[in-house]
Amino acid sequence: MSVNLSAPVAADLLAINGVRIGVTEAGVRKANRKDLTVFLLDAGTAVAGVFTQNRFCAAPVQVCREHLSAGTAIRAMVVNTGNANAGTGAAGLANARATCDALAKELDLQPGQILPFSTGVIMEELPVDRIVAGMPQAIAAAKADNWATAAEGIMTTDTLPKAFSRSLSLGGKTVSITGISKGAGMIRPNMATMLGFLATDAAIAPELLQPLVKELADGSFNRVTIDGDTSTNDSFVLIATGKAGNAQIGSLTSSEGQQLKAALLEVAQKLAQAIVRDGEGATKFITVKVEGGKNEEECRLAAYSIAHSPLVKTAFFASDPNLGRILAAVGYAGIADLDQTKIDLYLDDVHVVVDGGRNPSYREEDGQRVMKQQEITVRVALGRGDAAQTVWTCDLSHEYVTINADYRS
Amino acid sequence: MSVNLSAPVAADLLAINGVRIGVTEAGVRKANRKDLTVFLLDAGTAVAGVFTQNRFCAAPVQVCREHLSAGTAIRAMVVNTGNANAGTGAAGLANARATCDALAKELDLQPGQILPFSTGVIMEELPVDRIVAGMPQAIAAAKADNWATAAEGIMTTDTLPKAFSRSLSLGGKTVSITGISKGAGMIRPNMATMLGFLATDAAIAPELLQPLVKELADGSFNRVTIDGDTSTNDSFVLIATGKAGNAQIGSLTSSEGQQLKAALLEVAQKLAQAIVRDGEGATKFITVKVEGGKNEEECRLAAYSIAHSPLVKTAFFASDPNLGRILAAVGYAGIADLDQTKIDLYLDDVHVVVDGGRNPSYREEDGQRVMKQQEITVRVALGRGDAAQTVWTCDLSHEYVTINADYRS
Repeated sequence: MSVNLSAPVAADLLAINGVRIGVTEAGVRKANRKDLTVFLLDAGTAVAGVFTQNRFCAAPVQVCREHLSAGTAIRAMVVNTGNANAGTGAAGLANARATCDALAKELDLQPGQILPFSTGVIMEELPVDRIVAGMPQAIAAAKADNWATAAEGIMTTDTLPKAFSRSLSLGGKTVSITGISKGAGMIRPNMATMLGFLATDAAIAPELLQPLVKELADGSFNRVTIDGDTSTNDSFVLIATGKAGNAQIGSLTSSEGQQLKAALLEVAQKLAQAIVRDGEGATKFITVKVEGGKNEEECRLAAYSIAHSPLVKTAFFASDPNLGRILAAVGYAGIADLDQTKIDLYLDDVHVVVDGGRNPSYREEDGQRVMKQQEITVRVALGRGDAAQTVWTCDLSHEYVTINADYRS
Repeated sequence: MSVNLSAPVAADLLAINGVRIGVTEAGVRKANRKDLTVFLLDAGTAVAGVFTQNRFCAAPVQVCREHLSAGTAIRAMVVNTGNANAGTGAAGLANARATCDALAKELDLQPGQILPFSTGVIMEELPVDRIVAGMPQAIAAAKADNWATAAEGIMTTDTLPKAFSRSLSLGGKTVSITGISKGAGMIRPNMATMLGFLATDAAIAPELLQPLVKELADGSFNRVTIDGDTSTNDSFVLIATGKAGNAQIGSLTSSEGQQLKAALLEVAQKLAQAIVRDGEGATKFITVKVEGGKNEEECRLAAYSIAHSPLVKTAFFASDPNLGRILAAVGYAGIADLDQTKIDLYLDDVHVVVDGGRNPSYREEDGQRVMKQQEITVRVALGRGDAAQTVWTCDLSHEYVTINADYRS
């Protein structure tokens, strides 16, 4: 079940000069499953990442942070599914390091030049031996036009692979962008780990990459929610190989910096939205816009309050224009001095609430018409200022409970 | 469906000298349904209340706050079900006031001596005429031993009425306590409004009542959660008639003040827990204890993070000892400097996680044994200090989705 999402067509995905990807079946957890993906990055590639805020973060997340902050050039990444290497204590950390050691040895690199990623079941020991045994085959399979396979290789119980590309012209040179993501899947239960990898061949000053990946995440992956549960393993990585031949971008506020950022954000948003469209049990894709706030933070609070409310989400599942639930969620969002008499609410084009009360001209059948759609925009006007924020979410269905209440055996 | 909860036996409920209650069928929304309850309070009764923090609070909540803060002696309360008078704007406020005006006229009181409460469907106009028309009959029916009927009279789609009593001896005098509550019900959907009314005949200095009701709420109703949605109408009221003949309690920290507080808290906790036991779709009653925190606030954050997690709640529904979900919820609770290597986790007596990793002696079948119980205690030790907090919740079942996804017609 997914909402207006289809598998990528391999031929539509742009190779990124300087990035080769190999995928293999290492048997991490199950046989006959693409579960080990290796990214090989040419010398001169800049890499930056943002990671889960969960304090119970997984071992590979800790190692990624270490390796990125050490400042050594990152030259490869290794992603396994089937096991998240989370809740595994000191042994888990040693296993994540062992994975980097082994891949470094294969590639004649330093372990600090490798970033490891894991997703899958948690609180179980990472089968390092099987991962290491699979590496030569993954490396041998590495090629530039392999993004579609990589999108499959990082899936857990996602129902569809997720990959998008676009290109743009920067100073007469064509720059390519391709990204893949995986999301709201469970593997022998546990949690929905979000992984996103976004690569471009654009030349950009390396010191801009970290602020850029943070800004991209805030505009994409940090604006989606399935069920409000923040995973232990969430990771989003931005790769810039610098091979496109454009004049190196030295500022994100320059014209070319803004063009590149907008193009990267477009792909990042598609990747993030694809996770929601393929959310567990999702039958609807919902855009929640909160505007008229004093600042973006309070708009974000109100938008997430709506997007996380089980009552709101079940109402969407039922196509029930149960608008009081949305108002109530705004009310408990934590905006201390909110004045309910200033609030307006819209469902797509239907003006439902005026000044905190039912719009006299609102008719239930108009709300119902919108609620029956697969794509719905909820817009709340707070009447306090000019700030606005948007988040994307899905509904809460029986299928969500079925998926998550399924015993792991 | 409810978890270890049964209807109160009318004869077990203690009358509170100074409180008379009348219930009638006013036809607020549906015919043949007890939907209007009037509390008549003798002169000299002290009343205090705490109300929803939702900024989209209902009109009756606004009027209650006004009347209590004005300091006039409260002499009556009126509760209707079938309509929450929330999201109703200025007209709703006028309707709540009109209800007070009418009851004041019937009882020869001032409108400011009345507290109004409403629960039911929101964003629909309160049928004041029907409520006013029912008042004489409710007043005529008023009597002291009517708590069981009142517990029914405030129900919406609660499956069982909720009422508890106890008595204690204070300085040789017998003091009685009786309370009723309603909770996690939907009425032609909308939201789960929590109402709680707790009365005692103990003599207590009126100025102690407001801090006392706050403290009782924090130890009871503010520790439960069904789905994290805070209603627009939540109200908890404490009534002390002073008729028991005990020497007036002048301090909550005196021996007698502490005895009374403990007895009141016991009843308030039973009322609050009854709401969880009768939570929508609940099949399990879960106590979440977080201990070893630096302060109570961080323990509360972690406990609510567990209790609100849809992934944790569906795992309880499935009787799946899916412990990573609990650890992840602790990890994203917002404790910025949390050290995962200090965390231990217990399911009842089963020691599951040691120092942030799986306990080597933990066996899945032990976790499974506990998870199959109807009553489960999750205990998390943070290893940071001496503070502790407890919250109560229920699981997330298919029935929850069914109840809340049921279209309102």
